[in-house]
Amino acid sequence: MKTTQQSNRQPLITVGEALGAILAKITPVETEFASLTQSLRRVLAEPITSQINMPPFANSAMDGYAVIAADTTTASGESPALLKVIDNIPAGGTASKEVRPGMAARIMTGAPMPPGANAVARFEETSEYHPAPKEGLADDEVMIYQAVSKGDNVRPAGEDIKAGQVVLTTGQCLRPQDVGILAAIGQAKVAVYRRPRVAILSTGDELVDVESPLEPGKIHNSNEYTLAALVEKYGGEAVRLGIARDTVTDLTAKIQAGLAKKVDLFLTSAGVSVGDFDMVKNVLAAEGEMQFWQVAVKPGKPLAFGMLHGRAQANVPLIGLPGNPVAAMVAFEVFARPAILKLAGHLSGDKTTLRATLDEEVTSSGRRHYMRALMHLAGDGYHVTTRGSGVQVQGSGILTSLVWANCLVVVPEEITYLPAGSSVDVWPLD
Amino acid sequence: MKTTQQSNRQPLITVGEALGAILAKITPVETEFASLTQSLRRVLAEPITSQINMPPFANSAMDGYAVIAADTTTASGESPALLKVIDNIPAGGTASKEVRPGMAARIMTGAPMPPGANAVARFEETSEYHPAPKEGLADDEVMIYQAVSKGDNVRPAGEDIKAGQVVLTTGQCLRPQDVGILAAIGQAKVAVYRRPRVAILSTGDELVDVESPLEPGKIHNSNEYTLAALVEKYGGEAVRLGIARDTVTDLTAKIQAGLAKKVDLFLTSAGVSVGDFDMVKNVLAAEGEMQFWQVAVKPGKPLAFGMLHGRAQANVPLIGLPGNPVAAMVAFEVFARPAILKLAGHLSGDKTTLRATLDEEVTSSGRRHYMRALMHLAGDGYHVTTRGSGVQVQGSGILTSLVWANCLVVVPEEITYLPAGSSVDVWPLD
Repeated sequence: MKTTQQSNRQPLITVGEALGAILAKITPVETEFASLTQSLRRVLAEPITSQINMPPFANSAMDGYAVIAADTTTASGESPALLKVIDNIPAGGTASKEVRPGMAARIMTGAPMPPGANAVARFEETSEYHPAPKEGLADDEVMIYQAVSKGDNVRPAGEDIKAGQVVLTTGQCLRPQDVGILAAIGQAKVAVYRRPRVAILSTGDELVDVESPLEPGKIHNSNEYTLAALVEKYGGEAVRLGIARDTVTDLTAKIQAGLAKKVDLFLTSAGVSVGDFDMVKNVLAAEGEMQFWQVAVKPGKPLAFGMLHGRAQANVPLIGLPGNPVAAMVAFEVFARPAILKLAGHLSGDKTTLRATLDEEVTSSGRRHYMRALMHLAGDGYHVTTRGSGVQVQGSGILTSLVWANCLVVVPEEITYLPAGSSVDVWPLD
Repeated sequence: MKTTQQSNRQPLITVGEALGAILAKITPVETEFASLTQSLRRVLAEPITSQINMPPFANSAMDGYAVIAADTTTASGESPALLKVIDNIPAGGTASKEVRPGMAARIMTGAPMPPGANAVARFEETSEYHPAPKEGLADDEVMIYQAVSKGDNVRPAGEDIKAGQVVLTTGQCLRPQDVGILAAIGQAKVAVYRRPRVAILSTGDELVDVESPLEPGKIHNSNEYTLAALVEKYGGEAVRLGIARDTVTDLTAKIQAGLAKKVDLFLTSAGVSVGDFDMVKNVLAAEGEMQFWQVAVKPGKPLAFGMLHGRAQANVPLIGLPGNPVAAMVAFEVFARPAILKLAGHLSGDKTTLRATLDEEVTSSGRRHYMRALMHLAGDGYHVTTRGSGVQVQGSGILTSLVWANCLVVVPEEITYLPAGSSVDVWPLD
């Protein structure tokens, strides 16, 4: 009974304190070079400086005629400027002929500006689009019906990016458009953090794998699947270690097996509560150093954190999640997600948060409370409800509530009552 | 010139009309069975009915003593109920001994309730946690200090899910928690839509691959990388076809090569504008049936759609995106993303939309306008600006504006002016 009573007496620390303690022990993993096709959602480990101007050369922003603006100053429908067409420049072509006064070069969007020209008259403002006045016009002549100013419809070299300019900085998570700009500047490989390897170990004599039939007293190991999917969702690589039985021997062996796989973070589920068979924290104390095993949070109060002494590698942080599947998922979002993001090089692990109007009053215990909830976008922004239709969705054993929910309402510490109409922070669960 | 003038005269259709025409030609791809580890973010092609109760058996929600509630009716600190402990049931154990009046069974969270018992008294309400009063208590006795009612701290079989209950329905995209519930009910494989195969073909004589040095007049093919990343982001499989030159022969050959790879959707970029070398729509007309090639949208007005005549397979839809990288990405989000989602079995292709307060006035052309913008969460919800600091971020050639932006502001048709403080719809670009 001694252990049980001791653990029960430990004072509860807040979510902020617990997360701070976890992140203090986490350092980003090493970096590697990745090709652009492998770089999506990876985090940059270096600033990216463009070696080239973008665009690399002055080019036409329109299909039209490259001209000298001064040649068009008095051009109008009644008194067009008549110019001699000396070239026809496609995109991807070269512009070798110089445009001199009285001359023009037909030019396509993206094609390089010819020497001498300083503006482009769009087809719509030339005889190209007005067949009637063409009578009497020679094949190599064009009429410009509207004055253009210097620089009109021209994209100067370096307008977007100048050679030597930093386009992406360390810590940026690469989105599709970021991968695109890397391609645009010819950066075929980038230094990124490798994907963190996250061990997942479920504990409990009651667990059997999803493929196994259920004998009396047993349940399927669902946490492994939820947690592995969450690890992948947030950019980690899940290392599945299966189920450890409630014995010191098996648990120790499974933890050693995980360490041998060079994982960067260990996630266990169950075994961190106050029951006789909750031995993860005892094994953890023997194999490393425990830091805490209870947090003032609902759901998820039993939440262990410590450092495992790795053999051939540095110490490995271990987060002991609750066994209850609802609490395990919430605790993952609150504690494991920011840890994985920090390992992967992200500068912030803050969860994307929405503001929503609470559709009915809620009560809370004064601990930080993450309530399963359903939000929808209305005319005046997001609304959120924590109540299912006739179902008690906040029950900790109700797995289907996580399927019903599309978000968590975050009720801060010290708050015990929120009236209907309150503005609350919401974490989408997508 | 004939083609140019004809295409120019085509009336502009709205975004809604264009998207409706595209989606009308799209049917979901076929389905396959996937293991749970392969099912994340896939779309269910069948309703999932649980074959078992969840929990499968009545079990204890707490560490405590399973009792007959009637034995505790008068229990209090002064006058505890003294019960004989007949069993000690761990999670995963079996409960074979019947609890009769005057008896209790020590029980762990998740352990099966023993026959006869109908409530659980938590350790905290028993002599287990109060060592002092234990004096004189036999090893097989426990004192209960508080009355419990029938059902207290007991999770009945089927409380969460009843055998025969539908837990997930056709068309649901599987999130981590959904994968978890499939594991919980022992569903090791599920019928899901396969990932749609999406061909990506860039066109233009000015393009070279990211690995190639830039000769005069050339630029890197960035659209392939952005579009492939977007295809993967939305659950498709990108089939990269490289660059087609601006010749009917090369373009036709590349399109045939793509069809031979059994793609479900064709995306091209560039070649759908009004210039002489914009031939995608001509080749498309020869190899299939064009439906439209201009849409009233900014950016992205040149936007082609039609059906390619497949050889050994059904007709394949083709969306011809603009060549401008900014317009290509926006047009992807507006038109290609919903098409890919429908192919993949999603019931809706609606983009997640936030409501934000516009920080300064904007003007628009009256066409639907997707403006690059930066949003941030403030005390009164999201705020959004369409203006960079000193940079004209709305320029269509400004690739860096997509790196700067974290969202698009959607300005509806007919709107030409929005004052500062307006509430606008925003699409996150994450």
